[in-house]
Formats: sequence, C-alpha cells, structure tokens
Amino acid sequence: MTTEQLDSPVSIVDSGGPGQPDPSPELSELYRGFERELLIPLWTEIGDLMPKHPTPAARPHAWRWQRLLPLAQRAGDLVPVGRGGERRAIALANPGLGGAPYATPTLWAAIQYLGPREVAPEHRHSQNAFRFVVEGEGVWTVVDGDPVAMRRGDFLLTPGWHFHGHHNTSDEPMAWLDGLDIPFVHQTGSAFFEFGPDQVTDTSTPDRSRSERLWAHPGLRPLSQPGPTASSPIAAYRWEHTDAALTDQLALEDEGHPGVVEPGHAAIRFSNPATGGDVMPTIRAEFHRLRAGARTATRREVGSAVWQVFQGEGQVRVGDHEWRAERGDLFVVPSWAPLTLGAETELDLFRFSDTPIFERLQQDRVHVEGQNA
Amino acid sequence: MTTEQLDSPVSIVDSGGPGQPDPSPELSELYRGFERELLIPLWTEIGDLMPKHPTPAARPHAWRWQRLLPLAQRAGDLVPVGRGGERRAIALANPGLGGAPYATPTLWAAIQYLGPREVAPEHRHSQNAFRFVVEGEGVWTVVDGDPVAMRRGDFLLTPGWHFHGHHNTSDEPMAWLDGLDIPFVHQTGSAFFEFGPDQVTDTSTPDRSRSERLWAHPGLRPLSQPGPTASSPIAAYRWEHTDAALTDQLALEDEGHPGVVEPGHAAIRFSNPATGGDVMPTIRAEFHRLRAGARTATRREVGSAVWQVFQGEGQVRVGDHEWRAERGDLFVVPSWAPLTLGAETELDLFRFSDTPIFERLQQDRVHVEGQNA
Amino acid sequence: MTTEQLDSPVSIVDSGGPGQPDPSPELSELYRGFERELLIPLWTEIGDLMPKHPTPAARPHAWRWQRLLPLAQRAGDLVPVGRGGERRAIALANPGLGGAPYATPTLWAAIQYLGPREVAPEHRHSQNAFRFVVEGEGVWTVVDGDPVAMRRGDFLLTPGWHFHGHHNTSDEPMAWLDGLDIPFVHQTGSAFFEFGPDQVTDTSTPDRSRSERLWAHPGLRPLSQPGPTASSPIAAYRWEHTDAALTDQLALEDEGHPGVVEPGHAAIRFSNPATGGDVMPTIRAEFHRLRAGARTATRREVGSAVWQVFQGEGQVRVGDHEWRAERGDLFVVPSWAPLTLGAETELDLFRFSDTPIFERLQQDRVHVEGQNA
Amino acid sequence: MTTEQLDSPVSIVDSGGPGQPDPSPELSELYRGFERELLIPLWTEIGDLMPKHPTPAARPHAWRWQRLLPLAQRAGDLVPVGRGGERRAIALANPGLGGAPYATPTLWAAIQYLGPREVAPEHRHSQNAFRFVVEGEGVWTVVDGDPVAMRRGDFLLTPGWHFHGHHNTSDEPMAWLDGLDIPFVHQTGSAFFEFGPDQVTDTSTPDRSRSERLWAHPGLRPLSQPGPTASSPIAAYRWEHTDAALTDQLALEDEGHPGVVEPGHAAIRFSNPATGGDVMPTIRAEFHRLRAGARTATRREVGSAVWQVFQGEGQVRVGDHEWRAERGDLFVVPSWAPLTLGAETELDLFRFSDTPIFERLQQDRVHVEGQNA
Repeated sequence: MTTEQLDSPVSIVDSGGPGQPDPSPELSELYRGFERELLIPLWTEIGDLMPKHPTPAARPHAWRWQRLLPLAQRAGDLVPVGRGGERRAIALANPGLGGAPYATPTLWAAIQYLGPREVAPEHRHSQNAFRFVVEGEGVWTVVDGDPVAMRRGDFLLTPGWHFHGHHNTSDEPMAWLDGLDIPFVHQTGSAFFEFGPDQVTDTSTPDRSRSERLWAHPGLRPLSQPGPTASSPIAAYRWEHTDAALTDQLALEDEGHPGVVEPGHAAIRFSNPATGGDVMPTIRAEFHRLRAGARTATRREVGSAVWQVFQGEGQVRVGDHEWRAERGDLFVVPSWAPLTLGAETELDLFRFSDTPIFERLQQDRVHVEGQNA
Repeated sequence: MTTEQLDSPVSIVDSGGPGQPDPSPELSELYRGFERELLIPLWTEIGDLMPKHPTPAARPHAWRWQRLLPLAQRAGDLVPVGRGGERRAIALANPGLGGAPYATPTLWAAIQYLGPREVAPEHRHSQNAFRFVVEGEGVWTVVDGDPVAMRRGDFLLTPGWHFHGHHNTSDEPMAWLDGLDIPFVHQTGSAFFEFGPDQVTDTSTPDRSRSERLWAHPGLRPLSQPGPTASSPIAAYRWEHTDAALTDQLALEDEGHPGVVEPGHAAIRFSNPATGGDVMPTIRAEFHRLRAGARTATRREVGSAVWQVFQGEGQVRVGDHEWRAERGDLFVVPSWAPLTLGAETELDLFRFSDTPIFERLQQDRVHVEGQNA
Repeated sequence: MTTEQLDSPVSIVDSGGPGQPDPSPELSELYRGFERELLIPLWTEIGDLMPKHPTPAARPHAWRWQRLLPLAQRAGDLVPVGRGGERRAIALANPGLGGAPYATPTLWAAIQYLGPREVAPEHRHSQNAFRFVVEGEGVWTVVDGDPVAMRRGDFLLTPGWHFHGHHNTSDEPMAWLDGLDIPFVHQTGSAFFEFGPDQVTDTSTPDRSRSERLWAHPGLRPLSQPGPTASSPIAAYRWEHTDAALTDQLALEDEGHPGVVEPGHAAIRFSNPATGGDVMPTIRAEFHRLRAGARTATRREVGSAVWQVFQGEGQVRVGDHEWRAERGDLFVVPSWAPLTLGAETELDLFRFSDTPIFERLQQDRVHVEGQNA
Repeated sequence: MTTEQLDSPVSIVDSGGPGQPDPSPELSELYRGFERELLIPLWTEIGDLMPKHPTPAARPHAWRWQRLLPLAQRAGDLVPVGRGGERRAIALANPGLGGAPYATPTLWAAIQYLGPREVAPEHRHSQNAFRFVVEGEGVWTVVDGDPVAMRRGDFLLTPGWHFHGHHNTSDEPMAWLDGLDIPFVHQTGSAFFEFGPDQVTDTSTPDRSRSERLWAHPGLRPLSQPGPTASSPIAAYRWEHTDAALTDQLALEDEGHPGVVEPGHAAIRFSNPATGGDVMPTIRAEFHRLRAGARTATRREVGSAVWQVFQGEGQVRVGDHEWRAERGDLFVVPSWAPLTLGAETELDLFRFSDTPIFERLQQDRVHVEGQNA
C-alpha cells in the first residue's frame, strides 16, 4: 500500500483478468493518479458492477422461530422498551451483508417483543412498516390515533409518516414479525423521523379498527374518503378473510375452475383498495397456501423477499440451499435466486418483498422454470 | 316552407335576439345558401349550444314502483322472453328526451321481469350493464359462464362484452332494475352486439359466484389474476356487505369519528378492487343511507343520475320538482340540477350516474351549497 | 294517434318484426299503459339501440371549400361579429343528424371568417376548441392573454375554460377551420360559458406565442411549469414543424427504415408534451401525408372524424361514398365507416376525431382490412 | 473480539447512549446469543438507521475538469478499449462511500475517453445510461442500430437494455460525461448484461439520428410509434434546442412574463415526449442557466444529484462546502444537502439526479428556504 493510497479513501485493485490492461509502471502511476483525484476506472470493476445477471451480496438463509423466540423473551427481561430505543425489535442480519441488520439489501425483518402491560412509545418515520402475527394476541397498535388489535394471522400496516405506538393490554407477552424498508431508505438517504407521545393516544381496545370499519368491506369505498392514497387505508387485514380467500381458491380448483396460481398452490396479495396496487409503495405482501404434497415451479424474480411459515411443514429450496421449515421459521430469497417450495402438510406462508420498487422503476423481471421468458 | 328548405335537411331559424344580424332579404338569401350547402351559423344557435351552465333536455321525473310493477307483471303475461327481443325490460323514458327510451341522455334504466322458470338467452354487447335488486330472489344471471345469484339488495355487474343470460329457477316471478349506458353508446356510435346460446351455459345455482370467491375478500387480490381490469371483476356486491359498511359509518359518527359524508348521511361507492375506480368505465354506482330526519346539503354535479329507493320514505327535491318517495320508486336527476334529500324514516337509496365519463374526460364539476366551489 | 298518445311524449311503435310479441288488443292496451307511465319496452327498440356494429345516424359527406368560402365572405358583408353572436362561424351540418349544426354526433366543424381589423370578443367555455388554418394570415388569437399568430398550416388550441378572442391586424380577411366538442358537451349536459372583455386583452403581434417559447422545444419542459395538464400547454403547432416531421418520415422510408404508418403514408399526432397524450381530453388531431400514387389500407374505427385537405388532390372513399377532394375540402367519416384514401398528387390532410373519448372510456376498437383484429 | 464474534459475520456494538439498556454480563451474553443467530437489535442501531432527516454517507465534493482530462488522456495512451473492459470510463468516487466507484449511493458519473478512430464495442445492460458532452465532437454512439452524433452541449440517451457502442470517426480524441444508475442497480440486485458485436452495427455518420427524425419535433408524435415507452425515444437532445429554450425563458422574464424558476434562473427538464415524464425511470436530467449575478434560493431535496458546469463561472455552496466552479467541473449534492448557486458570469449547468426513484416510490420531499414546506 503506497503513501498515496493512504491519503485517499479510494484504492484501485488491478484484477489483471481478461479485458484488463497489461501491468506496467506507467499504468500503476496512472492508477495512483486516479486515486489522488478520487477516480476509479470502470474496466477494473465492470465484472462485479455489471454482471450478466444479478449476483446479490445477500445470501439465502433461514432463521428458526424456536431459537429466535427465547432470545426475544430474554431481551424482554433485560432490555426496557421506551423512548430512545423505541422498540424491542431484533432484526435478521443477512450473513452476506457485512454485518448490517438487514434481511436483504432493501428489507428489514425483525421479531418484536412486548411484555405484559408494556407500551412502545409513539413515533413516525418515512420508512414503510408492517406487522405480521404468527402467534399471540393482546397488543393494540395505535396508528394515527386508531387502535388496531393484533391477533394471530393478521397483517397490519403502518405506512410511512403515520404516527404509531403499541401497547400490550394483557398479562401475556406477545411477539410478532416487523417488516420495513429501512435498508432501502437508509441506502438512498431518504429517512425522516419524528417522536410522538410517550404513551399511545388512544387506549381503547376495539375488536376492529376504524380503518377497517371504513374500508374493509369488499369492493365498497366510503364516499367520505375520496382519492387514491399512497398506501392502503386498511390498517389490518384479518386472518379470517385471508383464510377464506385461500380456502375459496382451493375449492375452485377442486371444482375445476381457475383460481390457483398453479396446481395445489393458492395465493393472495394484500392490496390497497383505493388503487388495487400494493399495500405500500416499496413493499409487497402476500399469503400462500400449498396443499400437502404440492410443489411449486422454480421461480426467479428481480428483487428480494422474506418468507415466514405460518403453519404446516415443508421443504424450501433457494439456489443450492435447502431447509425443512415449520411454524414461525423465516427465510430470505435474494434477488434472482431460484425458489422452490414443497409442502409436507398443508403449508401456509406469509411473504413480503421489495417488488414494487422494481415494478415502479420498470426494472422487474420474472422467470418461471418451464415457462417462456 | 320554401323549396330550398325542402331540398335540405337543414333549416336555419333566425331567432332575431340579441347578437343577431338585422333581418334583410340579403341575409335571408345567405341563410338559404347555407342550407343548400348543409351549413348552419353559430350565431343563431349559440344561446342553445353554449349556455352559461348546463341546460339539459332531460327533466327531473319520478316513476312509482307501485305503478311499474303491475305493468311489468302484465308484460309477463303477454310478451314472451326469447331470442330477438332478448329481454323483458321496460325502460324509463324521460319526458324531455323526445320520446326516446332514455332515463337521461346517457343512461338507460329499466325494470326487467322474468317469470317462473323463464330463461333470457345469452348475448353480449359493448354497452356496460348492471342489475340492482329491490325485491325478490330466485334468478341467477350467468356472466361469462359464472352463475350469479340475485337477491334483494344485491348489485350485480355485466360489464361490456361479457356474455350473459338470466334464468329463473323458482316458481315465483322476479323483477329488478337494469342500468346501462345504452343512450351514450348509441349517441356516440360505439355499439357492438353478439348473440350467445339460447340457454344459459351453466344452470347451477351456487350461493356465491366464482367471481366473488376470487375477488370479494376485503383488500385481497388473487395472485392468479394479475393486472388492472377495465371493469370490476366482482360480479355481485352483496347486500350484507353494503348494509354493514353503512352501519359502520353511522356508528363511527355516533362515536365522534369521521366516516359519514355529512351529518346523518352514510354512503359507499361500489368500486373495482383491481383499480379502486368505478365499477365500469361509464357508470358509477353508490348506495346512500340517511338517518330518519337527516337532510342532505343541496348538491349540483355535471352528469346525470338515476336513484331508486331501497327502503324507507323521504322527500326528494330536484330543482323545482319535489316528491315523496318510497320503496322501489325511481327518479332522475339531470345534469347540474340541484338535489336535496330528506329522510322521514331511515332511508336507503341506490344511485347510479354517468360521472366517470366526465371525470375521465376532465369535464367534471361539483357544487355543494354552502361550500366554496 | 290516440288520445293517450297525445297526453304522453312517449309513443311505442310495434315493429312487428322477429322477436316481437304477436299483436293483440291486450298488447296494445299494455303499450298504452307503458306510454301513460313514460315507459318504453326494450323489445321494440333493441334492433335500433343494440345493433351488431355501430350504425351511426351521421352520414359520410363532403363540403367543398370553393363553395364554403364565398358564403363565408358574404357573411362577412352581412353579419357583424360581436358580443352575443360571438363568432362569425358557419358549421357543417351532417345530413343525417336531423338538422343540427353537427359534423358528427360529437364534433363541431365550422369555417370562421374575420374581416380586416375585426375583433371577435373574449369568452371562455367548457368546450374544447382548436383552429386549423388552410390559408391566410394576419389574425392573432389571444388565449388567456397570450397572443398567438395564425398562419397557413398552423394548428392552434383553445382548451376548455381558457379565455380567448381573435383580432385581425391586417387589411385582408381571414378564414379558418374551427373544431370543437360542442355536440358531445351539449348532448351530455356539461356546458359552461362565461363572457370576457369585448376587446382582446393583449393586442401585440409576436411571431411566436409565449406558450411556444415555453413549451415548443422538442423534449424539453420548463422547470417552472410542473405537473401534467389536462390539455396541451402549446397554443400553436407550427406548419414548419409538421412539414419537417412528415418529410423526415418519408425520407426514412426511402432509406429503408421504419417511420411511416404504411407504404407512402406519413402521419403525426399533435400531442400534449406534458403527458404524451392527445392535445385535449375529447379531441385527437393528426396530420397525414400521402405520396402521389399511394393508397391507404381500408380502416374502420369506433368514433367519428372530420378531415380537411391541406394541399394536393386525391380520392376519398367512405363506405359506399366516394369523392375527389382538393385543397380546403372537408369530409366526415362516421363511426365504424370504412375509409380509404388515394393520392393523385402528394396529398396533405388534417384530421380531427373524438377518439380520446372512446380510449378513455375503454370502448375503442380499430379494424384495418387485411390485418388481424 | 470474542470467539463467538469470530464465528459470526455479525457484531453488536453497544453504543451505551440514551435509550440503551444498562451494560451487564447478562446483556452481553444476550448480545452474543443474537450474534450467533445472526440477529441485531434495533435499539443499538436506531440512531444511525432512522435519523430525524437524511444523513447520507455521500459527501459534497467537486472534481476539476482540468485535472480529470489529463488523466483520461493518459488512460487513452495506456489502456486499450475493447471487449472485457468495454469502456475507457473513469468514475467519480465519492469520498464518503467507502472506496466504491460511486458519485452518490445511486448514481455513477464518469469521464469516458475515446481516441481517434477507436471503437467501444456494443453491449446492453439493464442499467440506464446517458452521455453529456462538455466539449468535442466526432464520435457517434450507435443505439439499437441508430447512429447518434455527439457534439458539445448534446444530451444523449441509452436507456436500459438497448444495445449500444461508440466509434470515433475523427482524428481527434473525445471525452464526455457518462451517467448511469449503476450503484442503485448494483445495490438492489437488478443488473443484467449482454455482449453485442465487437464493432458498431452501423458506421454511417448522419447529422441527426433516426430517433430524432421521428420524435424530436415539438409536440408531434409519429403515428407509427404508438404507446408510452419506459424511456424517452429521443436518443439525442441537441444543444441548439436547449440553448433556445433557456434563451426564451430569460427573454420572457425580461418582458415581465412567467417562465423562469426564480429571478435570473432559467431551467429545462429533458423529458420523454411519449409521457411527459423523466427521460428514464431512474434518472432525471436538467439544464440550468443563471444570469451573471443571479443567486438561487437554497434548496434541499430528497435524493442525490451530480452537476457539471457547461460554461461560465460561479460559486457553489453545498452544506458547508463551497467552491468556485468553471467549465467542465463536476460536483455532487448528497440527499437533503442544501444547495445554493451563484453566477459570476452567465452560468450554464447540466444536472442529473435520482429524483424519479423517490417520486415513483412516493418518498420525494423538497424544501426551499423562504418557502413554506
């Protein structure tokens, strides 16, 4: 390492591979000149920067619910929840991402834990957030003043710049999955944050949120709420609806009618009823059900996803990684990694991904094995 | 009438009003020259063609269900339903529209009547159509092969170019409201029509249509049905959902939360879950509920509407017309006519209008008395 | 004619054709009952209302510039232009439209004539309007205070609700084509109108309008004018640009590259640079150039169009009508009527149509002979 | 560093600040447990991940054309251009981005150099690219077979997945600015790449590209090219148009009419004529002209930008960095950094940014000092 390199945050590594100029003292001197001026040539970097297809740093990886939950419980004992730390949330850190608390380069996934009678204070941020509940109940999340009950199977939204806090009204702790676009927002420099009250602004505990009473009637819009909205106005997508929709699709398949994605594979996308689009501008959320014995086609997609098993057991294959997964287990599918799912029992899975980013920027691609591009 | 006029389909009427040229033999000769060449000056027509605000030919008018229904029943005795006539539908003819079978210049509204065990044969057309059921049950409408039960309070779609037929599986006759954009399509020359089978293609009588099983889950889209669709994929919007949504809005009002359009006035719009927009490109459909004693603000809107009382009783004021209306009664609100509704009992009303035409062509305007423009 | 019929604006004509019920006194009594209640059955009307394909009332027809112009000049002698009559505009009255001053059911087309030093006062209206100049110069149209020169070949916009007046600064009269959506707006009841000053608000006579200086640079948007706009912000599309674009397309064809619509047929659409869409929400405008000897494929399209020959001579075939057309001649193509053009000399034509209405309402269809649907 | 940490790519740093749990052996043990399971708590990271406003890693920095150009020339002597290295492009490496060849976290900016008669071989990639020419001429870039001349002041597009190569037809070298979304595409894992021919597919040297002959006529669309396109179909935005548009805006200001962004500051955005939107889905490009003595309002914007001085001299202030800049100089404005420009002479600047990403994902924000939010 030369003196010049020490002076510069930039260091050019001559890979010496095909397409590279022959080494020479003159070339070396040129590279040192580049470094002094904060310049890096394309020709030494192009293989990494412009690969033939996506070569994401993120790796396929699985986290076991049975190992996460005890750690979250232990954090419940040791780590208070309150202003400053804001949330007792423990994030999946993808082993390929250099120690960052990122499930994928764009997505954050964490287990959040709230003890009996605890309160997570209100705040808001430009990051889009949701919760998915794999087990438990007793917590209400209060979104812009609207208390939203959290129960097993529910999918709950706190879109960007909505105030929100959580409070546990029960004598049992509760843990759930948080999903956000924190890495994307951090990377692109678009994060805003504001504190709200230390306590939630409405401590009532209704069965349904006001947002659902206004918006969660199929195909019906309240006339008092005109206009499309950036994110879905439905704060909670309830398990009974998700379950009913999937049950209907499989019944239609039994009757010989269209409805499932592929044989034995029912799936819904959580959507914004005011636009038909994704629930939030950067995050897609879906729920999949496979019949026992069903196996999905192998699929690649630009963009990354995180899956959580809701119930049942099955085999997951991502690239050349393979796991058996069961209730609560989480796994990551990096961009363009081929995914195949096989169900041992009836298998229910929640999925979220960054696909809206690519669709809105017209960089989306999908490849399903056995289908034409 | 001069010889020249007989030769031409065009005849210029000199109104002689302000802004008109002084009569003279030369002017008269000029006008005859215009007529020969199929020309008409703007200056004799501008007052009618370009008024300060809409002056629709259609008039406010009400039709009484108690007088329509016996005529429809009598037609059931005398007029067979079948290929050629296609439907036993009897249209409201607005008294201002020169004897055309049009409720408004753009909208068709008819009572359709199907006797016990009768079948209305399948066909499809570019006109968008819906049914609204004010009473009865026992008929299934089959839309592109999907049997859709019709029951009191249900709102049912047959968007343009979908095959559809109806069959009455019961021993009772059934009557309902048909709404279409026939006048608009006729006027603009965009009508296409195709016959289908004489019998409906699926005689099963399921409680829910396949379209509902796929799409009528709140905020959930089937993954197997990608992309936005010109019209809503939900073939039937069921009364229980409409009723629940309105009940929720009034309860929110009772609790002091937003939700109603104005005090005592709940309303929903039937929407396309794949876009959040109107159910069909030319027709908006809504359901309104007024508490007993409530009165709406007076509202004008570009575009025409037809209303039907579903239940309850109230006063309707349209311009300087006023009626008392009750179950099944229909009335027309021409473009820009001021409408005020007052409820004597709890009052439920179905409404459909041509508003999407004006919104899509950016010619929509609304004026609510007491609000700024 | 019976007494009942006299009492009602509605009269049912029993066509007695296929699909009609057998005549009987009871049927006749039923029909009289319908009439009393302002009802008309579908079954007597369906053949007319719901034809297999569009059967527009408008007819193909041609108007000769050499016969229009002298009448316009004579109107210049006899009819003053000023407040009340507003414009010395003489409209094409389609022979199939019952004597209305309508070129088609949706479109107005008129020759407007302004004598030396005359002024047409300012007003605004919800109707969308344009001018196309087949010959002459010397008039400025002032649109929301921006003076816009009018010269041969120019296409000029006054979108809905923009104030506009015209003044002739020269010692020569000038005549041009006006196109508006008056019939559509009248039929649908969406007309608003407001008087402005009697004189134009800016009497300067710049070569280019301010709108062009801001917006008529290819692919460049002024940063000070954000957001899409309902209508094009370009007040004048100049002949030199239109001519250059068509010349380029034919040269590309000569060089063996894509660009023309079909062999020997160049065409451009006037567009809104802020959206890429049509210049106004209801009106499409295009310019077509055929090489001498070229012949277009026969084309049908939902919606109606008006064409004007700008220069050259050719044969026009619309359905079973055929004309030879030359400079200034106008002709109408009703909805779904097959159109074929053949050029004797190089042939330049301006065209406007109501196609945006059908595209926005998703009722557009096109059929080109020899191509698959 | 403990053994556990060595086993894991994850390491939790207890910041010990406000909102952090008190240190204890139990806490430390918990953190080691997290690390073993690839977990990281939010509470130790939230200050960095969720700041009150964007705190981008990228730093304001300026690169001097007079120091870049000699290095590029020297690279011309030492580094061949050809298959493998693909391009003799030398990228600006932001000093805050850890030695990556990124101007900002989303944008790549490089000086590309092509010697006399050299050819850069054809390839295509999902990354969106453009060129901006600050001096010189003689190179044609061939985009999907269409040769596009490059001249001083021109802005040229090679949108994602278009084949392109460059060839220098002159005896002089040429250097220009390349801009791409390489960092964004790399970070999000959406890169695809494909080699094309080693030589350009069309060696002709027309003055205008075919794309311009089809599309660069103001407000005119070729009828043969229907539909919106993801990126602009104009391959070259010529200097004469840019210059004319800016000149017009300043002249309008002189005459007292709207047009400039603020006093003495004219600006255009390069746009897609088929949509009115940005030229490419991820990149916005603009050109700004300040009168001598003019000074812009201080502006912050979510998203990062790179500017290049085209001609003139002025002062640039970005946050607490300030430079004098002249012809060819480049500088970076990180997300939310306040920017103020002051012109000593008339000052022309090219700018590109990642703003479309934030607008499409509804995360855009702008703050201009002295204006309300």
